[in-house]
Amino acid sequence: MLKINENYLNIKGSYLFAGIAKKVREFSAANPDKKLISMGIGDVTLPLADAVVAEIKAAADEQGRADTFHGYGPEQGYDFLKNAIKDYYLKNTGVELSLNEIFVSDGAKSDVGNMLDIFSKDNVVLIPDPVYPVYVDTNVMDGRKIVYLNANQENGFLPMPDETVDCGIIYLCSPNNPTGAVYSRDQLKKWVDYANSKGAVILFDAAYEAFISDPLLPRSIFEIDGARTCAIEFCSLSKTAGFTGTRCGYTIVPKALSVGGVKLNPLWLRRQTTKFNGVSYIVQKGASAVFSEAGIEQSRKNIEYYRNNAKIIMQTMDELNITYTGGKNSPYVWLKCPSNMGSWEFFDLLLEKANVVGTPGEGFGKNGEGFFRLTSFSNYENTLEAMERIKNILK
Amino acid sequence: MLKINENYLNIKGSYLFAGIAKKVREFSAANPDKKLISMGIGDVTLPLADAVVAEIKAAADEQGRADTFHGYGPEQGYDFLKNAIKDYYLKNTGVELSLNEIFVSDGAKSDVGNMLDIFSKDNVVLIPDPVYPVYVDTNVMDGRKIVYLNANQENGFLPMPDETVDCGIIYLCSPNNPTGAVYSRDQLKKWVDYANSKGAVILFDAAYEAFISDPLLPRSIFEIDGARTCAIEFCSLSKTAGFTGTRCGYTIVPKALSVGGVKLNPLWLRRQTTKFNGVSYIVQKGASAVFSEAGIEQSRKNIEYYRNNAKIIMQTMDELNITYTGGKNSPYVWLKCPSNMGSWEFFDLLLEKANVVGTPGEGFGKNGEGFFRLTSFSNYENTLEAMERIKNILK
Repeated sequence: MLKINENYLNIKGSYLFAGIAKKVREFSAANPDKKLISMGIGDVTLPLADAVVAEIKAAADEQGRADTFHGYGPEQGYDFLKNAIKDYYLKNTGVELSLNEIFVSDGAKSDVGNMLDIFSKDNVVLIPDPVYPVYVDTNVMDGRKIVYLNANQENGFLPMPDETVDCGIIYLCSPNNPTGAVYSRDQLKKWVDYANSKGAVILFDAAYEAFISDPLLPRSIFEIDGARTCAIEFCSLSKTAGFTGTRCGYTIVPKALSVGGVKLNPLWLRRQTTKFNGVSYIVQKGASAVFSEAGIEQSRKNIEYYRNNAKIIMQTMDELNITYTGGKNSPYVWLKCPSNMGSWEFFDLLLEKANVVGTPGEGFGKNGEGFFRLTSFSNYENTLEAMERIKNILK
Repeated sequence: MLKINENYLNIKGSYLFAGIAKKVREFSAANPDKKLISMGIGDVTLPLADAVVAEIKAAADEQGRADTFHGYGPEQGYDFLKNAIKDYYLKNTGVELSLNEIFVSDGAKSDVGNMLDIFSKDNVVLIPDPVYPVYVDTNVMDGRKIVYLNANQENGFLPMPDETVDCGIIYLCSPNNPTGAVYSRDQLKKWVDYANSKGAVILFDAAYEAFISDPLLPRSIFEIDGARTCAIEFCSLSKTAGFTGTRCGYTIVPKALSVGGVKLNPLWLRRQTTKFNGVSYIVQKGASAVFSEAGIEQSRKNIEYYRNNAKIIMQTMDELNITYTGGKNSPYVWLKCPSNMGSWEFFDLLLEKANVVGTPGEGFGKNGEGFFRLTSFSNYENTLEAMERIKNILK
């Protein structure tokens, strides 16, 4: 008789964004004349760069001719893309990687989830609250013990290590989703020292690194001394280059990272070669164009565009005397709901009165109660209009 | 302190194809003038259909314009592709599926591996021997108890259920990799009845269904009465439409499939929405063209081409009085090594004397000892030449 993984029955029933979608659907059905502006889900709106589109089309043509056809490729990614990533890392962060520390994937979400395969179920896991729900859900699926790190206004939504707590796995997301808070070098150094002293691994989610504008802030955990013996880093082209629907990311597993004499890099390689068959050749060619001169230039322009949206949101919050984190080095503005409203109460108010859709903070954890996330990924005109509407109902 | 998944240390060290690649590399380095013909790894050689290439390029253009840009899509696949798959199923097998039974993925290998997430580690697993190594490796990674099903010449490499054995998970691959053997309707019915009586799930790998030419043989396990309450089916565009490097597959989890009152379809949906973000929009558009009239026609021609190669291999084996299975309803010819040679002994002979690369049977399990796999995925000219060379050394 088959036994299912009973841990699945412990995952929370309705996923945050499904709940939002339902409310939006119901409102739209009842109010077909209202034009909704979405500042909810963290999806981008600007298209792929021309250089990327051209490369994808050229690769499609290659796949259509027997003499240039590519069948099975290396599960961990083609060297042409890994070399482009290696060069980008060096220029962007000063970090020198070797090719076999780079694993190309169909996105950071897959790697963040699948990485847990190589760790025992019997690990204590530190997870900030609030945070991207996937960290919690994937560990609940495995039945691991979770200890939450309180992120709140007092610590600027940047919790620091507690030496008295023992753990095996630590999640850090910087710039943070949803709070937009970014760890400084000194703060990350404390986390790295803590992880090394405990023999723990930091799973560092750097999906939003391209939004960092302050040159003093670290864009990669590997900029910190000692990180190569305690950290794995997840990166994504989703927000950097508009790959949310095209799907490509990459994960760095340092060769120096080991536990009790067992290196993690070959374990992850084995996981990927056994349960994955590599990213589409066509997508990898497109991804490599992201790192070309033209690709980098267009990505930079897109980030500037979203950054300008974030500025408009921040100015509005300032005018309304609403406190927030994020926005400056992050596409997300994380605000305290005015008049001590609850997250869903504020959600309903914005939906019904301003016809603007955001994300209730409590969807990211209990410390998110009373907070709210707005994203800068809409287009400029909608961002302006949404802020005008919000000003009108709150002033 | 981090604890790793110790089961990873129990996986066999060198993957079959890595071992072959090393031998080939060494031979080529020592004999740079010899032209090797590969009939080893099951990779295709014919390019993508024109209709597929055109659709991929059109989708790339869409991704390059803000008004047609696609960001995050449904994790389980777009309806346009799921509808195409649903229609194909009905025409090809007579099986009627509903859309939410179809899950689009980046390939059958990923789904075969990831499906185990929703099952307890505490399950007995039946796996045929010899077979595609991924079934064994992914279960060793989870520490499950494996019971092997002996596939051999006596049972035509088609092992049947043993009522005295209890189990939770059963792997069947038909047409089989590596043996090319195909279960009949009656045989599959026995497996379905067995699984239903034990409350077990059959993981049915149908990656090679398109190679079945005999109209009496089942192409889907769902052609068998009772399969919807005990089976999950994995399908792939890799061999059907040359997607080995473009990456797209699909998995069928029937809504009627449940264990102890828990339905498996929502569990798999939850796994995929949590640890996966869908297949690239561009690739899904290309995949949908596989099921267009032009796409089906070109896929049929490609299968015919490989089938003709298989015929040439079979004729050669007949001339040499070498016994084999497969070839007729499968791209693989599974032969008994002549003169009671061992698998690797025969591999070395073919490599060194005929400069032909095949796959030693023991790489697929202990019952593969003394057997050898040749694939029909080379081009026609190379297949002819390889067979001439083999005839010359064995006659």
